[in-house]
Amino acid sequence: MPEFIFDKWTEVYAKKTRSLQSSPIRDLFSVASRSDIISFAGGMPYTKPIAAEDIVAATQQALAKNKDASLQYCSTDGHRGLKKHIIDFLKAENIRAHEDGILITMGAQQALDLISKIFIDSGSVVLTESPSYVGALNAFANAGARIETVAMDNNGLQVSALKEKLKKLKKKPKFLYTVPNFHNPAGVTLSAKRRHELIKLAEAEDLLIIEDNAYSMLGFDESSNYPALRSLSDNIVYLGTFSKILFSPGIRLGWVLAPKAILEKLAIVKQSSDLCTATLNQHIANEFLNLKPWPKRAKQMAKIYEQKKNVMIESLKKYFPREASWTKPKGGFYVWVKLPYFVDTAQMLAEAINEKVAYVPGAGFFPNSEGKNYMRLSYCLPEPKEIEEGIKRLGKVVKSRIELYRSFSKYRR
Amino acid sequence: MPEFIFDKWTEVYAKKTRSLQSSPIRDLFSVASRSDIISFAGGMPYTKPIAAEDIVAATQQALAKNKDASLQYCSTDGHRGLKKHIIDFLKAENIRAHEDGILITMGAQQALDLISKIFIDSGSVVLTESPSYVGALNAFANAGARIETVAMDNNGLQVSALKEKLKKLKKKPKFLYTVPNFHNPAGVTLSAKRRHELIKLAEAEDLLIIEDNAYSMLGFDESSNYPALRSLSDNIVYLGTFSKILFSPGIRLGWVLAPKAILEKLAIVKQSSDLCTATLNQHIANEFLNLKPWPKRAKQMAKIYEQKKNVMIESLKKYFPREASWTKPKGGFYVWVKLPYFVDTAQMLAEAINEKVAYVPGAGFFPNSEGKNYMRLSYCLPEPKEIEEGIKRLGKVVKSRIELYRSFSKYRR
Repeated sequence: MPEFIFDKWTEVYAKKTRSLQSSPIRDLFSVASRSDIISFAGGMPYTKPIAAEDIVAATQQALAKNKDASLQYCSTDGHRGLKKHIIDFLKAENIRAHEDGILITMGAQQALDLISKIFIDSGSVVLTESPSYVGALNAFANAGARIETVAMDNNGLQVSALKEKLKKLKKKPKFLYTVPNFHNPAGVTLSAKRRHELIKLAEAEDLLIIEDNAYSMLGFDESSNYPALRSLSDNIVYLGTFSKILFSPGIRLGWVLAPKAILEKLAIVKQSSDLCTATLNQHIANEFLNLKPWPKRAKQMAKIYEQKKNVMIESLKKYFPREASWTKPKGGFYVWVKLPYFVDTAQMLAEAINEKVAYVPGAGFFPNSEGKNYMRLSYCLPEPKEIEEGIKRLGKVVKSRIELYRSFSKYRR
Repeated sequence: MPEFIFDKWTEVYAKKTRSLQSSPIRDLFSVASRSDIISFAGGMPYTKPIAAEDIVAATQQALAKNKDASLQYCSTDGHRGLKKHIIDFLKAENIRAHEDGILITMGAQQALDLISKIFIDSGSVVLTESPSYVGALNAFANAGARIETVAMDNNGLQVSALKEKLKKLKKKPKFLYTVPNFHNPAGVTLSAKRRHELIKLAEAEDLLIIEDNAYSMLGFDESSNYPALRSLSDNIVYLGTFSKILFSPGIRLGWVLAPKAILEKLAIVKQSSDLCTATLNQHIANEFLNLKPWPKRAKQMAKIYEQKKNVMIESLKKYFPREASWTKPKGGFYVWVKLPYFVDTAQMLAEAINEKVAYVPGAGFFPNSEGKNYMRLSYCLPEPKEIEEGIKRLGKVVKSRIELYRSFSKYRR
């Protein structure tokens, strides 16, 4: 919570600024980074397997090849050499891309911001899953969007619910934002059948889809690698990122693959947002991928995350009360936990921090007042031993909350 | 110019997207970067004096100290170590800053974008100098601002004209955006006397000032180092950057120093814009400044740019027709050239490119249809010999334009 600050500029702020959405993860950042706390809060990739020597070697190589270009501004759309790696990466998902169809961004979050800028006016309707990635919700809301949601289940977005929603809406939605793979925060994956149904519906209704594939290549089992929506249709704005396996979040690199007319507009707003993506980072990432081809690391990382996921699921079974339930991710970083309706996870957080364990309360992942009894647990960063210990601590907090409620209810009766 | 693209999404774009402003520098980028062209177009810092070994050493150091933190997301406001260097840098301008009052951004351009987001609604009035930095004009215009301008002369912004403008405006302006030092593109510097007058007027009228000090420490003569506006008043949003002397533009680092209430809002919109500034870059820049203290480099760079400026001014005297006039910068990167009213510098550009020399036509630096007979010449990047040769080529183009007009006028008479 920010302290009270005297603000003499109130009357000059933009209208939308008066109701800015702050991220619950941002508010949690300083406490969740404390070394004495086991944090399941941030979706922070496990960076230990990346060797410092490889980054230094990539930096050296980039500067040796073309120091002055690496230190200069570059073209807004991005470095051609790095685009070749992106094209190669997309090929593994059966997506054919051309370098002119790609815009390199400062992380996929910037892509969400640029998309908000070109599509969202104050009051525009935007469709998201319920729950949805908090960074997307905030980017859309801060641009002035009215967010309408579509329900999910263990097979991801319910396409039939989307169809109903489209019938009810009085205003044409600007787009549907979806995370089909290893959903953030829900941990579920859109089934192959529904992917085809979704594409069919979107084409019939002229609905633009924003496909956020941040956790691409992080499936635990090849049989659950369903086709990317972008591999089934060209009318998709596809978001990718270097944060998870291609490099790391500290280098802030992502990309958008979009129909050319949309890409041209995104590039213009990117120019006024930051001129260009950091050239040095693009050159370093390019050389890093030259030195260390990604497919091997993708497999290694998926294995590591699968093991962590297993520890978390086993620990949940062991330490959480039977009133709790959770999703079983086929890949990615997150388990989505449901507690009894009377547990408010935002209120419970202080107790958890007291027990030296952190998570993200569920409400932040909904644009309305839903989700109070949910929590997102990220197993990506802690070591397996910490995961077990953290879930043990958290289980204790959850159990005591449930008992507290029960004892109150008893007196109330 | 973008090719014609069939665009089926026209009806879902945001209203403001239909009139997006592209930067003339972006459009010029690919041609101006051709190795056979002498470019006075981009404001590209001279990076040769930066040694590759120093960057590699800084990278090595950053990773040795804390590899995993360098590769991870960081707090939205930025790295504390790097903020210490910023505070130190500001101290040299008599600005007292605290780390909680600083937000590190992806270049100063991002700061302009964040400022646009929190202050500008569609139709908001914003004040700029005339001419003004094209990246600021585009950021404000793309956010929906109506830009009102204030005239400049050889002593910078005319404070008396600002006073008149404020009387005439029917709507309270959101802020005044100004580049007091070594103006981009005009090459002039706000006099010490006017700085005090400006602060007095702003405080009387409750006008927020955005001070863009991108060319800080690049004065050619200590007697022209006038006090930063932020050193005279706390009610200023001050923008700084690592692009010019602290590091280079390829690392995309800048900062905002603002009253706390404003900074808190900027941090929230930054979170939904890109989550955080690239952590690796902040750690590398921090170590780079530990290894190579900036005061020595600032002096060295100011000397180099002064020499280039001298060559450009001498060459203009030698090769440009007497109908042309230009500003004499006391620092920074730019000379602003005025040609006779009948020369359209945008139209002339093709001829210049033909002669293998590039510049930025003046019209891009005005929010209206002014400035057609101006051009911005950047002397920062080319070597002195190239500057002379480029001005020689450009002088020929300008002279032939003037002669062409004269011969037409003769027939018309």
